[in-house]
Amino acid sequence: MKALVIEDELSLEEVPMPIREPGESLIRVLTAGVCNTDLEILKGYMGFKGILGHEFAGVVEESDNAQLVGQRVVGEINCVCYQCDFCQREMPNHCSNRTVLGILGRYGAFAEYLTLPDENLHIVPEALEDDSAVFTEPVAAAHRILEQISIEKTDKIIVLGAGKLGQLIAQVLNPKCKQLTCVGRNNWKLEILKDLGIRVAAEDSLLQRHQADIVVDATGVYQGFTRALELVRPEGTVVLKTTVTHPTALEMSLPVINEVRVIGSRCGPFRPALESLMLGRVTVGPLISETYELKDGVRALERASAREVMKVLIHM
Amino acid sequence: MKALVIEDELSLEEVPMPIREPGESLIRVLTAGVCNTDLEILKGYMGFKGILGHEFAGVVEESDNAQLVGQRVVGEINCVCYQCDFCQREMPNHCSNRTVLGILGRYGAFAEYLTLPDENLHIVPEALEDDSAVFTEPVAAAHRILEQISIEKTDKIIVLGAGKLGQLIAQVLNPKCKQLTCVGRNNWKLEILKDLGIRVAAEDSLLQRHQADIVVDATGVYQGFTRALELVRPEGTVVLKTTVTHPTALEMSLPVINEVRVIGSRCGPFRPALESLMLGRVTVGPLISETYELKDGVRALERASAREVMKVLIHM
Repeated sequence: MKALVIEDELSLEEVPMPIREPGESLIRVLTAGVCNTDLEILKGYMGFKGILGHEFAGVVEESDNAQLVGQRVVGEINCVCYQCDFCQREMPNHCSNRTVLGILGRYGAFAEYLTLPDENLHIVPEALEDDSAVFTEPVAAAHRILEQISIEKTDKIIVLGAGKLGQLIAQVLNPKCKQLTCVGRNNWKLEILKDLGIRVAAEDSLLQRHQADIVVDATGVYQGFTRALELVRPEGTVVLKTTVTHPTALEMSLPVINEVRVIGSRCGPFRPALESLMLGRVTVGPLISETYELKDGVRALERASAREVMKVLIHM
Repeated sequence: MKALVIEDELSLEEVPMPIREPGESLIRVLTAGVCNTDLEILKGYMGFKGILGHEFAGVVEESDNAQLVGQRVVGEINCVCYQCDFCQREMPNHCSNRTVLGILGRYGAFAEYLTLPDENLHIVPEALEDDSAVFTEPVAAAHRILEQISIEKTDKIIVLGAGKLGQLIAQVLNPKCKQLTCVGRNNWKLEILKDLGIRVAAEDSLLQRHQADIVVDATGVYQGFTRALELVRPEGTVVLKTTVTHPTALEMSLPVINEVRVIGSRCGPFRPALESLMLGRVTVGPLISETYELKDGVRALERASAREVMKVLIHM
C-alpha cells in the first residue's frame, strides 16, 4: 500500500500492508487530517520514524468483531496495555507501555490502511461526513479541558491561538461561559470565529493583565505559556495544550506569588466529541483550507505549515 | 529605634519609630526569624528597600482595640484594601493594592517596632514560647498546601528540599499520607527529619521517575521545578514553593504530555499553624541553628545563608 513515511525526510512510499494483531481491526482510511503535532514530528518531536498521521476516518475491512466489519469509524490514538500501574489506576492514556498512532511506536493514518485495537474505535453516525468525522480527535482534545477543570458561567476565559486547535477549543468552551475571547495573529482566522459568534482579539491588542480566570494556551509556540501567565488572574488556571520541543525560559516566581494553577492537557474523550460534531455544536467546515490526494501528501504537509492555511485533509 | 535596613546593602540603622495608622497596632518585636525570601531580597528579589523581615512574635503596645494592648501576637504579612476585585472575590492575599511586611511597600520585622492592621494579628497562646511562635508564618505557608490540594491517605508525596521550609512542609504533610519522603542535600538536615519519624532520601539517591502523586518543590533553587517534573506521575500534582528570580529553561512538553497539575503556593492560614505549634504537631526546636541580638543583625543574615545553618532568629 502507499503511505507517507518520515525517515530522514517525508516521502510517499510503497510499504507492506499492516498486520492485524488479535483484537485489532484493519481499517481502510478514507480521509486523514494534518495536525500541528505532525509538523512538530517533522522537526524531530518524539523522535518518531515511520508512517505519520493520527487524525482519520475510515472503514473497518477486517476484525475479530463481526459487528465492526463494514462500519465507518474514527479511532482513539493511544493503544494501551491494561496491565501497568497507570492503566490499573484508570489513566490508560498514560499507560507506561502505550503506543500512539503515528506518534509513538505505531504506524499512522497517512496511509491506505492502518490497524487499531477494536476498543479504540467509535462508529461514526451516518449523517456525519468523513471530512467532519476526521475532526473527532482534535475536538476530543478540546473536550478534555472540560474533564480537567470546572468552568463557572461567570468565568472570563481567554484562548490563546486561533489556529486549528485554538478554534475548536474556543467553540467547545464558548457555550460554558459568558466571556470567552480567542486571541489570534491572523485576521482571517479571527473572522471565522466572529462568524460563529465568538469574541476575538488581535494578538497585539492590549488585554488587561491578570484578569482572566482561565487561559488556554493553544498557540503552538513556546512563548504562549509566558503570555498565559501574564493574563491569568491570581489563583486562576492556565491550561497548556502546546507541545513544543523548545525549552522555555520562564520566570517561575510569578506563578508562585500569584498561586496560579497550570494543567497540561492532551487527548480527550471521543463520544462527546462525536456528539458535538453531529449536533453542529462545533463547526469544522470553515477550518478546512485545502484537500489533497495521498499521492500529493508531501505537498499537503508542506502546505499545512503555511500561514494562510488551517486544516489540510488528505483523501486516500 | 534600631532596625536592619536594606538599601544598597544591609546595615543596622537608627530610624524613626513607625507611625500607627487608624486600625493598626504598634507592636514591639520580641523575636524575628530569617527566611530564604529575606536572602532573595538581599539579592534583588522584589526590588524591596527598607526594613527587612516578616516572621516575628511581639507585644502590642498601642492599638485602637483595647483588647489587643499588652497581648503577645504574631501577624499575617499581607495588608489588604478590601476594595479591589481580588479582595471582593475573597482572595485578599492577592489584593491588587496590598503591602507585604518587609517584602512589598511596608517596613518589616527586623526592628524594635512594627505596625500591622489589627485584623492581621493573632494572639499567641500563653504556653507557646516566642521562639516557637515566630515560626507561625512559615508553618502557615506549609498549611497553605492543605487548602489548595486534596491529599489521599495512599498518596506518595515527595518534598524536595530539607531546608527551613521543606522541613516544616514535611512535618505538616507527613500525617496526611502513608508514604512521604523528604529529599535533601545535607545529611545533618535529613537526620532532624529522621528523628521525627519522617522518611528521607539523599538528593543524589535514585528515585523512581514519574511515580509520586504529589511533589512539593521547596528547594529554593530554580532546578527544583525540573526535578519535580521528573518525579511526578502523569496527572499528578506539583506544588511550587520556590520563589527565585532566576529564569528557568523548561521543556514544557513533558508536563503537557503527562497532564501534570502545577500549583503555585504562597502564604497560608495562621490559626491552624498556631494550633500545630501549640499541640506539638510541628517541632521547630531542632531547626533553630543560631540566635543573634538585633545589634548583630547583619551577621545574622550572613549566617542564615551558610550551608551549616537552618533557622536564624534575631532577638530585639
